[in-house]
Amino acid sequence: MKRYCAELVGTFWLVLGGCGSAVLAAGFPDVGIGLLGVSLAFGLSVMTMAYAIGHISGCHLNPAVSIGLWEAGRFPLSQLPYYIGAQLVGGLLAGGILLMIATGKPGFDLLAGFAANGYGAHSPGGYNLMAALLAEVVMTAMFLVVILGATDSRAPAAMAPIAIGLCLTLIHLVSIPVTNTSVNPARSTAVALYVGDWALSQLWLFWVAPILGAIIGALIYRVMGSEKPVIE
Amino acid sequence: MKRYCAELVGTFWLVLGGCGSAVLAAGFPDVGIGLLGVSLAFGLSVMTMAYAIGHISGCHLNPAVSIGLWEAGRFPLSQLPYYIGAQLVGGLLAGGILLMIATGKPGFDLLAGFAANGYGAHSPGGYNLMAALLAEVVMTAMFLVVILGATDSRAPAAMAPIAIGLCLTLIHLVSIPVTNTSVNPARSTAVALYVGDWALSQLWLFWVAPILGAIIGALIYRVMGSEKPVIE
Amino acid sequence: MKRYCAELVGTFWLVLGGCGSAVLAAGFPDVGIGLLGVSLAFGLSVMTMAYAIGHISGCHLNPAVSIGLWEAGRFPLSQLPYYIGAQLVGGLLAGGILLMIATGKPGFDLLAGFAANGYGAHSPGGYNLMAALLAEVVMTAMFLVVILGATDSRAPAAMAPIAIGLCLTLIHLVSIPVTNTSVNPARSTAVALYVGDWALSQLWLFWVAPILGAIIGALIYRVMGSEKPVIE
Amino acid sequence: MKRYCAELVGTFWLVLGGCGSAVLAAGFPDVGIGLLGVSLAFGLSVMTMAYAIGHISGCHLNPAVSIGLWEAGRFPLSQLPYYIGAQLVGGLLAGGILLMIATGKPGFDLLAGFAANGYGAHSPGGYNLMAALLAEVVMTAMFLVVILGATDSRAPAAMAPIAIGLCLTLIHLVSIPVTNTSVNPARSTAVALYVGDWALSQLWLFWVAPILGAIIGALIYRVMGSEKPVIE
Repeated sequence: MKRYCAELVGTFWLVLGGCGSAVLAAGFPDVGIGLLGVSLAFGLSVMTMAYAIGHISGCHLNPAVSIGLWEAGRFPLSQLPYYIGAQLVGGLLAGGILLMIATGKPGFDLLAGFAANGYGAHSPGGYNLMAALLAEVVMTAMFLVVILGATDSRAPAAMAPIAIGLCLTLIHLVSIPVTNTSVNPARSTAVALYVGDWALSQLWLFWVAPILGAIIGALIYRVMGSEKPVIE
Repeated sequence: MKRYCAELVGTFWLVLGGCGSAVLAAGFPDVGIGLLGVSLAFGLSVMTMAYAIGHISGCHLNPAVSIGLWEAGRFPLSQLPYYIGAQLVGGLLAGGILLMIATGKPGFDLLAGFAANGYGAHSPGGYNLMAALLAEVVMTAMFLVVILGATDSRAPAAMAPIAIGLCLTLIHLVSIPVTNTSVNPARSTAVALYVGDWALSQLWLFWVAPILGAIIGALIYRVMGSEKPVIE
Repeated sequence: MKRYCAELVGTFWLVLGGCGSAVLAAGFPDVGIGLLGVSLAFGLSVMTMAYAIGHISGCHLNPAVSIGLWEAGRFPLSQLPYYIGAQLVGGLLAGGILLMIATGKPGFDLLAGFAANGYGAHSPGGYNLMAALLAEVVMTAMFLVVILGATDSRAPAAMAPIAIGLCLTLIHLVSIPVTNTSVNPARSTAVALYVGDWALSQLWLFWVAPILGAIIGALIYRVMGSEKPVIE
Repeated sequence: MKRYCAELVGTFWLVLGGCGSAVLAAGFPDVGIGLLGVSLAFGLSVMTMAYAIGHISGCHLNPAVSIGLWEAGRFPLSQLPYYIGAQLVGGLLAGGILLMIATGKPGFDLLAGFAANGYGAHSPGGYNLMAALLAEVVMTAMFLVVILGATDSRAPAAMAPIAIGLCLTLIHLVSIPVTNTSVNPARSTAVALYVGDWALSQLWLFWVAPILGAIIGALIYRVMGSEKPVIE
């Protein structure tokens, strides 16, 4: 029970920190944090939570990550629905709080974005469906490679949160212009449900692509990393 | 005695580094560091001090943090007044030094800001009282969750300063536009006393909200984190 | 075999992350990540992979690094061709994927850049051949000094990926305006083959200079660092 | 002998990385790294070298740091002149290489800056002598507090390079507008000798203030930190 609670709180932080920085601070006039600041915010939300709750739940904060870890044999199938449920609830709570803060400023426009993910007309840079799909699949696959490698028994355990958090930063540095970067169905759902409209109708891609990518990433690491561990 | 001295020096550094970067460098023409640089500066002030004085005082640098740690059973009530006093003195000293440096440039305007925290007309982005209150409470609550988790006996102790410092960076990445970000009554007081005027009349919120948030954060971690430790 | 696979995947990530951030996100209107974001992306690609595959292949991702490590007596000559081959294949795969994503946006212009390295008329800042050669030699030499020092048995092994990754960030912070920064023949080749034209005709420099620099760096570390280790 | 060589190479890197980023990349049109990038570059030059040569020379790279460590009883007086000499030679070599690269672009103007430190008319933000002196003294004092604390036997040794390097980043985030930030007489001298003129005539302040600050910082840490160590 405590671990589901931790996943809920952690995903709350990922959405409030990552999407919150995008909605409130990215485009602030003259001194805004830009896509670089948003990339850093998403990465730091995962890094800080990995140190805070890693010892409680493993700090997945992402249905695609939970599925990839299950496929890699590191997470039991029986807990998968509870983890995904907790991640969705935590993300939606954060989306609600963020909406309350954002509407505290006159002139806020929910349909203009609220950090939802999209492709085609709703890609920040106007990238089409195929580019969006490809980017999300490849980025999530490499995310899983880094997660599985950095938590391998042969890697220094204390550093895994840095590797994983800053990998999410790197993923955003590359792909925000393409899809606003998801690689996480819970993060996408947490804001799409409030935006509704186009965000909901494009949401399917941000479940399909990250999960497909996570499965591919777990396979890649199995091929190249699964020598018998040096220690353990 | 040494630990109160360390809290004084540490909070001096937090205010000089964090508020100093905002006052002197954020809006520098063309190449200014912006809100991203200020967010980094606040986080690095805490991270560097946590490595420098963590072994002396625990490096709270923040009355809300001291109160949250007390509520979590990790800090004795008897030392609370001395810690808070040292934090206020250190912060005010830094505010004074910063004012001496800032006025070394012709045309400095104290009332225009000096990095004071505010809401409504004095929120950087024009956010109202409720949004400001909500942001400060939620951000401080999550700050305490990260502090308590990263210093849990099951987490790698050497990494706690990175988790905690960069959590403060993340908090600023999200919420500078809302309140200029406090989550720390000593930091707010350290500049409000020099600005006077509106900054003093809004200072109450930056004592009430961070302390309320810290208590909530300590409760959250108690619920989800207080299983008997795996190790120790 | 697993280690060649790891070098392939790792260099794929370096090119997709580093060059990808430059092509897709650096110049995004108003909120683009700029040269600072690109510098961070290159460094984080190496840092994340060093935690993910360091225990499999050592994570060179760079023919000049493999050659420098061989010269320093830390890597066998017999594996050099396989490592370099895997790095080239991984880089070229990433270049292809990046091209597929980039062309998903109308108006993409391959000849305008695609993050290829260049000098003279194709240096981002218009630096001549001699400046380009000097910068690439010196930067790669210092890169090898940091690599050899941070992986010395007397240095903390768990931190080497941070030192090495952020060294690559620093190298980019200085030298992107000069050559777009290579210090890595595989990274240069991975995009030059797609650009063709001027990028191919200037490619020689980004093999010669990094390899020469790596040899010099290994010599420097041998002179100043090769006392018998304290531990080991 | 090896340790003097290491100090020379390390200070070479600090000047080439820090001043190099300022001269070549800070003001690059549209996508320049700005003061934030320069701040990061100075910090990363020290962090990377501390991992690369910390086990050889201790990685001072700064006459004020060597003097402060001597005053704190952690460095022998007999080696002080050799360390300072090596730091000056390494810095001047870097200044020369940087000049060769910078002049590889038509229209480079040495007198316009070359990252030299200054006050009054030559302060980037127009700060007067007193503000410059105060900033340099206080910043160097706090730098020494962090250096002495992070290398205290009670702090985690492997993390000291991160604390110290990012402390230098923080110092730059605050004070580049005031003096272009020195806190290091070798760094100031390394570029002032090439600029000559006003840079040379203002150089005295960037020897006096950092050394005075370092002595004050060592005293502060002695007062608050010198309890008998837990370990050692």
